[in-house]
Amino acid sequence: MVTRVAVLGGGQLGRMLGLVTYEWEGVPADTARALQGEAPVLPLPRALEVSQDRLVEKNTFRSLGIATAPYRAVDDRASLDTAIGELGMPAVLKTRRGGYDGKGQAVLRSAHDADAAWAQLGGVPLILEGFIAFSRELSIIAARAADGEVVCWPAAENQHVDGILHITRAPAPGLGDALQVQAEACIRPLLDSLDYVGVGCVELFELDGKLLANEMAPRVHNSGHWTIEAAATSQFENHLRAVLGWPLGSTTPRGPSAMVNCIGVMPDRDSILAIPGAHLHDYGKEARPGRKLGHVTVTATDEATLGERLASVEVIVGPRGSP
Amino acid sequence: MVTRVAVLGGGQLGRMLGLVTYEWEGVPADTARALQGEAPVLPLPRALEVSQDRLVEKNTFRSLGIATAPYRAVDDRASLDTAIGELGMPAVLKTRRGGYDGKGQAVLRSAHDADAAWAQLGGVPLILEGFIAFSRELSIIAARAADGEVVCWPAAENQHVDGILHITRAPAPGLGDALQVQAEACIRPLLDSLDYVGVGCVELFELDGKLLANEMAPRVHNSGHWTIEAAATSQFENHLRAVLGWPLGSTTPRGPSAMVNCIGVMPDRDSILAIPGAHLHDYGKEARPGRKLGHVTVTATDEATLGERLASVEVIVGPRGSP
Repeated sequence: MVTRVAVLGGGQLGRMLGLVTYEWEGVPADTARALQGEAPVLPLPRALEVSQDRLVEKNTFRSLGIATAPYRAVDDRASLDTAIGELGMPAVLKTRRGGYDGKGQAVLRSAHDADAAWAQLGGVPLILEGFIAFSRELSIIAARAADGEVVCWPAAENQHVDGILHITRAPAPGLGDALQVQAEACIRPLLDSLDYVGVGCVELFELDGKLLANEMAPRVHNSGHWTIEAAATSQFENHLRAVLGWPLGSTTPRGPSAMVNCIGVMPDRDSILAIPGAHLHDYGKEARPGRKLGHVTVTATDEATLGERLASVEVIVGPRGSP
Repeated sequence: MVTRVAVLGGGQLGRMLGLVTYEWEGVPADTARALQGEAPVLPLPRALEVSQDRLVEKNTFRSLGIATAPYRAVDDRASLDTAIGELGMPAVLKTRRGGYDGKGQAVLRSAHDADAAWAQLGGVPLILEGFIAFSRELSIIAARAADGEVVCWPAAENQHVDGILHITRAPAPGLGDALQVQAEACIRPLLDSLDYVGVGCVELFELDGKLLANEMAPRVHNSGHWTIEAAATSQFENHLRAVLGWPLGSTTPRGPSAMVNCIGVMPDRDSILAIPGAHLHDYGKEARPGRKLGHVTVTATDEATLGERLASVEVIVGPRGSP
């Protein structure tokens, strides 16, 4: 947090910092812009501005020809009613800023829901999004170098529990070239338009074989943790390669993999380590309900074996960390 | 070095140390034994004693039924002549202690060589070994847990330049089940007999499809660095799992791989990173002729691609780090 940084003057900070990057999209864009006077900040702060406001984000997607759910800005109660009239229900009301992991949003299925959601969320800038009955959520992660080269990992499939990412399967089961190309078309123009340098992610809804962009994250992403063990180059390594101006590494997957988040409590260590192909990551955080404390990535050489190993991991981890 | 450790008394050291392990076979066995009074030392110091004396080492191999080159202890000039008479020439004269990377040894092909080698090496306990015209050198690395479970990685093929490991290919090209079983038979009885806990290595000579044990290393080994990227579990992780009493991880290879040591000078970083499947490890050491400063591991999904990538790495690294 910027409030914990000592007050420095006369270029002191610039001499301390060779380069600034970030792994959290909540960094105030103004702070990132101020640091630009001291040292290069990558990705550029514009990426934070776009990702921090759902309306700006959706407008950016649309301006680049990237499909999204229908949406309307909601600034007051009257505009909410207008938006509901135009988009119909069900629809999802979200705060434009500050929401994550399913927080700051409500599904509206009736006028009653609209009243309740307005009571809860009204007073800050909102956005109403058409409800998408998607078949699954995917994410596409890419690295962009300063010279404009973009490399994408294969799209992954994400399964949530209570609005928090629970399992990622990578490559997404059944992922073919056509779907991968469509997924890449949802992130490449975005990174190019932002003159982006580093790793970024776009979350996607799949509906009848078509993809809609939901939101972007200007950082390495939870749904890319599988790349540590299961891709030729991890998202973390390619982020550093990109911001340091080094050549990007291959994003080729090394076989099928799955990642399971450990939420609220860590699983029994020895039980996880005894599963072939299981890799345990413990973030060393204090346990707290709903907190991501670690993850398990499981690898295999074929889908059938992966499925068996993933099932073993799920039994031990449980949907919220407690079986 | 023990001389840099502060003098502690009254169990202070024991309270600081939960567990002692080592990654260098030159740790004095007496030091390791003294530390046993303070905390568990794993692998047990006996492994250091065996590996630090080529005669004890060879006697240990033979007592376990593990084949070695013929050898004789050499304590004075007369016993050297007797040993030459019994083993014939060529033969290799080595110091029993302190040799590594080809240092402290000489090949004897004539009486003149014997005189010159004696002038150079005489005065310390020596061993004369029959010269083995081996077709290649292999190494077998294993992890042994406290409960006696042993897991082995596939045997690797090692190529040396000037007595220093230059390239490891893993699994060794053409490695079949029979050769792997034979290799494992050269390390499993050894680890069992030492009640070994941790990762160890035995270097092997292959001659007409038969393996002879050359020497052991009671530690993670340079010829096992490929396991970081190219095995389900790395030698480093399994060493820590073993000494911590955790379940051992799978040693299954993730495809063919090769490791190239960077000797004396580091290669051009961007050139290496631009090779698909190449992983650069820079130890951050000051450059010095003959010093291992880092290594490159290259991975691929098939042998042909690996060969192409390895050739690219070799051109950049050069046999001694300088093309």
